[in-house]
Amino acid sequence: MIKVGIVAYGTTPFTKDDHKIESILHKSTNNLFQKYPKIDKKEIDAVLVSTNDNSKYLSAILSEMSGIQPKIAHSIESLCNSGTNSIVSAFSYISSGLADMVLVSGAERYDSPGQILEWDNSRGEFKHPIFWASIFSKSYKQEYGITEEDLAIVSVKNHKQAKENPNALSKKTYTVDDVMNSKKLTDDLRLLDCSRPCTGSASILLASEEMTKKLTDMPIWITGIGQKTISAGFTKNISLSSMESTKIAGQSALKMSNLDISQIDVAEVHDAFSVCEPMALESLGFTKSGQGINMIKNLHETNNFKINPRGGLIGCGHPLGATGISQTIEIIQQLQNTADNRQTDNPKTGLIHNMSAAATSSTVLILEK
Amino acid sequence: MIKVGIVAYGTTPFTKDDHKIESILHKSTNNLFQKYPKIDKKEIDAVLVSTNDNSKYLSAILSEMSGIQPKIAHSIESLCNSGTNSIVSAFSYISSGLADMVLVSGAERYDSPGQILEWDNSRGEFKHPIFWASIFSKSYKQEYGITEEDLAIVSVKNHKQAKENPNALSKKTYTVDDVMNSKKLTDDLRLLDCSRPCTGSASILLASEEMTKKLTDMPIWITGIGQKTISAGFTKNISLSSMESTKIAGQSALKMSNLDISQIDVAEVHDAFSVCEPMALESLGFTKSGQGINMIKNLHETNNFKINPRGGLIGCGHPLGATGISQTIEIIQQLQNTADNRQTDNPKTGLIHNMSAAATSSTVLILEK
Repeated sequence: MIKVGIVAYGTTPFTKDDHKIESILHKSTNNLFQKYPKIDKKEIDAVLVSTNDNSKYLSAILSEMSGIQPKIAHSIESLCNSGTNSIVSAFSYISSGLADMVLVSGAERYDSPGQILEWDNSRGEFKHPIFWASIFSKSYKQEYGITEEDLAIVSVKNHKQAKENPNALSKKTYTVDDVMNSKKLTDDLRLLDCSRPCTGSASILLASEEMTKKLTDMPIWITGIGQKTISAGFTKNISLSSMESTKIAGQSALKMSNLDISQIDVAEVHDAFSVCEPMALESLGFTKSGQGINMIKNLHETNNFKINPRGGLIGCGHPLGATGISQTIEIIQQLQNTADNRQTDNPKTGLIHNMSAAATSSTVLILEK
Repeated sequence: MIKVGIVAYGTTPFTKDDHKIESILHKSTNNLFQKYPKIDKKEIDAVLVSTNDNSKYLSAILSEMSGIQPKIAHSIESLCNSGTNSIVSAFSYISSGLADMVLVSGAERYDSPGQILEWDNSRGEFKHPIFWASIFSKSYKQEYGITEEDLAIVSVKNHKQAKENPNALSKKTYTVDDVMNSKKLTDDLRLLDCSRPCTGSASILLASEEMTKKLTDMPIWITGIGQKTISAGFTKNISLSSMESTKIAGQSALKMSNLDISQIDVAEVHDAFSVCEPMALESLGFTKSGQGINMIKNLHETNNFKINPRGGLIGCGHPLGATGISQTIEIIQQLQNTADNRQTDNPKTGLIHNMSAAATSSTVLILEK
């Protein structure tokens, strides 16, 4: 398999702005090209757009706006893990030899149609993700004797970390009391337990080994990929307090990279809601079942940014199609030791966990420098 | 590069029915599995859905409906060439080694949002594809001294061929006079010059060389792939009477397969409108500039089904996300000598040409047995 590296990235701040999807996509792509003037756009073979937006032909539009005439150009959608699906697709184009360099650009507007799960009749009227998250929270709390105050730590930690991220939607820090006193949305969820929809874009440029070495002296390599789709409806989950697709994707990614989970130095996990962070940490094997909150508390108390250094979805906001790419950019910055106040202690390996719709599907990527 | 084969296909009739997109997708997939009971769904690593439909998470939904739990699952959109973009993506997953077997399923409803080109302000209000097709027709007729009656032959031939295709939308044959007397839509286009939106789905299953040989004794191999995106707006075309992206994609595909265009025995080309067929034949190199109509007349008079044996988009209807896959299925049937009354004379090589939005992007595939 041809080795695949990441040579460049660009992003926009995550905001509540009402911009056109084309403009948002172009803004992060433009940011990328401005930071890496060595890149020759003529050498870009593919442009993949990750989004849930209903606009069509966005990859051709973005290509034209950016002055690229790629061979391959299309949009990719898989709800909240569209971003990592696009990265894996780019990896396969390069690894197969069909492309040498691929731009992946993800974007979403605050009013994305991907936020409502329209198809799952097992939900009745309860089509918003807060309803599955609420059931997950109830189930997780019951199974492991976790309190609402325990779960609130996730939001406190991730908002604290997001404050060090200039592109994050949230600019504030909160206490456990603040989380507990925030607006109650369901029996089990408060406003500050939730990631918020927003407008934002993130782009990365992937390349073959040879081109990566030519273009950057800080290459980051994708060494592990794992993906799994269990179902489309969350009631098919085997368990409501663990993530089966995440387990399988995580194991596959670690196997491909020849690493053990204990060797992962820094990770972005998909905390769409507070309960998702401990569940993901457990399903990935960072800690035992029911121990996720203890791990998070320890990290928070020691001010260790190992998990979700950019502030997670809860702190950064969640522009669906951009999220997986933004998570990946954070891990790139961590491995390149350029994450400023969010920098963890000289990490060599990083993991990205990106999922959709109650973890009915998951992607796990492993990056190494 | 790992060799990639096609081991199975399934389709629905193309109709004007008002079915849900999930049902249509499932119908062609189901048709595939019924015809090939040897296929073990557990061995399907990826499910890619090709569509312009606005519904989300369709690949996970189709997977669940079909009893598949893939690793990779997402939707792909690039307007009218979504289908071949998905096939190339499947090829790259297998060729890179990330997948052994990939299901590609394309579908569209008659009211697809991909039929209106919303983004191109250079069109003013004229956002329907008939307007670029009208400009192409005017330009092509002027440049080569072609008449409207000449162009009408494309529709006559393709409706005749579609009559031998049980899945085609059109069931009738027409004369040149019928075409000339059909409703005038623009200065240059009549109703029977146009492919019609419809409801339909087509699915194929791609596999690695080893798995292909295990599953079928009539393997069809993808030996050539070419793609090119020139722009997103048709006013950027260098010429309005040839297809630049098709030229480049065709040359790349032929180079990859080590074939010359004269060695192609049968082809599906993207006749979204009558003028597109001669333009595509010329841009692919089947004949010289301005000679496309003569070639089509000769084929029609000798009842040679070499070009668009299934009846083209004009005869079959054009369910956008399904079209490229349906074209591919026709070439598979031709190479397997199972095309019944449409069968050409023992072809060994076949070509698929699938494009979007005034040929601003094109895909060309070459299949061999």
